[in-house]
Amino acid sequence: MSDQVPLPAEFSLIARHFRPLAGPGALNLEDDAAVLALPAGRELVIAADAMVAGVHFLPDDPPGSIGRKLLRTNLSDLAAMGAAPLGYLMTTAFPQGTVDAWVAEFAAGLLLDQAEFGLHVLGGDTVSTPGPLTLSLTILGTCAPGRALRRHGARPGHQLWVSGSIGDGALGLRVLQGKLPPDPFLADRYRLPRPRLALGQALVGLASACMDVSDGLVQDLGHLCRASGCAATLRAAAVPLSAAAAAHPALLPLLLTGGDDYELLFAAPPEAAPAIRAAAQAAHVPVACVGGFAAGPPGVTVLGHDGAALALPKGGWSHF
Amino acid sequence: MSDQVPLPAEFSLIARHFRPLAGPGALNLEDDAAVLALPAGRELVIAADAMVAGVHFLPDDPPGSIGRKLLRTNLSDLAAMGAAPLGYLMTTAFPQGTVDAWVAEFAAGLLLDQAEFGLHVLGGDTVSTPGPLTLSLTILGTCAPGRALRRHGARPGHQLWVSGSIGDGALGLRVLQGKLPPDPFLADRYRLPRPRLALGQALVGLASACMDVSDGLVQDLGHLCRASGCAATLRAAAVPLSAAAAAHPALLPLLLTGGDDYELLFAAPPEAAPAIRAAAQAAHVPVACVGGFAAGPPGVTVLGHDGAALALPKGGWSHF
Repeated sequence: MSDQVPLPAEFSLIARHFRPLAGPGALNLEDDAAVLALPAGRELVIAADAMVAGVHFLPDDPPGSIGRKLLRTNLSDLAAMGAAPLGYLMTTAFPQGTVDAWVAEFAAGLLLDQAEFGLHVLGGDTVSTPGPLTLSLTILGTCAPGRALRRHGARPGHQLWVSGSIGDGALGLRVLQGKLPPDPFLADRYRLPRPRLALGQALVGLASACMDVSDGLVQDLGHLCRASGCAATLRAAAVPLSAAAAAHPALLPLLLTGGDDYELLFAAPPEAAPAIRAAAQAAHVPVACVGGFAAGPPGVTVLGHDGAALALPKGGWSHF
Repeated sequence: MSDQVPLPAEFSLIARHFRPLAGPGALNLEDDAAVLALPAGRELVIAADAMVAGVHFLPDDPPGSIGRKLLRTNLSDLAAMGAAPLGYLMTTAFPQGTVDAWVAEFAAGLLLDQAEFGLHVLGGDTVSTPGPLTLSLTILGTCAPGRALRRHGARPGHQLWVSGSIGDGALGLRVLQGKLPPDPFLADRYRLPRPRLALGQALVGLASACMDVSDGLVQDLGHLCRASGCAATLRAAAVPLSAAAAAHPALLPLLLTGGDDYELLFAAPPEAAPAIRAAAQAAHVPVACVGGFAAGPPGVTVLGHDGAALALPKGGWSHF
């Protein structure tokens, strides 16, 4: 059985599964580092994320979706900065006993996303671990000098926006954990984030602040408030929900704090609203104005459907 | 006791221990990515390595040395390419129960090396793991366009060189495992590689091929032979040994195959020898000519002290 074949030695594994993912600058993964020139007149935008089996994804998630989730969460960071993808490096710590067919599926998933998002692998490292599968990815992108979107520009009077729909990822995790009934849409939203790259790049010059929502809408909005030095009000009734999420009205607190959204959260002056709506339409991503910013100490007030402040059970995800 | 204080929440941990390591471009670790321009007229050189407790280092190694080892192994990749350091991103997966004082020591070690090697952290991610401490680091450097050292340029008639001394790291691991008597010099060589950055940059234009020795001298020389399409002969008697390693003549096979050297292995035409010796002297790193390249199928012949071919027990380190 092909899935019983043990892993080939480290270098054969890299040659078989990862070399086909390599692009310009990777030097065929045969040298000690990649070498590349940035496109003329662009700055480098770079971020890294790690994922651990059982923490960031389920150990029995399809192998093809695991690498794609990591790549997409990193691409979401580029989207939040208004950057265009350039390439990535990935380190993989495989548990002993990982079979060759698993790695083949893992790499096949990455190949799909490389084609979808237009980037290639530049390098990395493959090691063994006595612990769970652990992945780390560094994403490279570029932007025009001085034009990256940042978190610190929201000002009193600016509107608060989010892209897509909120809460699907948190519900999808509960579906996959068996805590909610099976729902392929929600499971897919947990496993395969949609990095809003086109929207992020279109928001350059329009948004006054931007970040991606990964640790829960309310907690992440708090970060944006602290960076910008102002207060925010979030209108729960305006938060865009998928039909699947809207079917769980009792779980509203989870939707607003649960994490794994990978949508863009951004601020903009009111006069930018028509241009933002046009940019979103061009990027084929819905956007919704969900609140606004005011002078005051950094903090988030969430207004419920009745207009009264909602008390939420916790601020969001923390690893410790 | 301060070492009994549990880890602060994720964001406090980053603010306390990692923000002080951040440099220009890191945006104070408050945004979704770092943004930086490359120095004018330079190309980006980028590599990533991962390390797992119990695989790449000993779980009870001093916390301050663990991050430094990872940073230095990555800097060694830059040295091998003839590149100058620019910055790094690091992801850390900490086991539950990691105490604040451990992270403080870990970060203090990185701060020392940042000062020694002239670079800063640009970004990263901090997560929890049910498994062993797992670290991944992406190093950024720069080189003049088209001038990076590669592995593929060795030609028949070229000489084979190594820097520093070989085998200390492999012996140091055995010392720390209690398999050899205590030896602070060897233990230090295992824990703190010396990336040969000045030498690597000085070899640009002199060496025809270069790589760093991380998985064992003989195995890594095999990689260089395959990349260059020629055969190599390694004279064991010419391989530079520290006094501590020379005291273990029976362990010669281990010294030549054991890994963790982080020295430079390079090829050059014979006429470059005087310039190489001068460059090494200027960089304060000893170099030794240890063999040469010949036409033939890629492969390594090791000649023992008696001039006869040595049969070595295994090729070198593989994770699988």
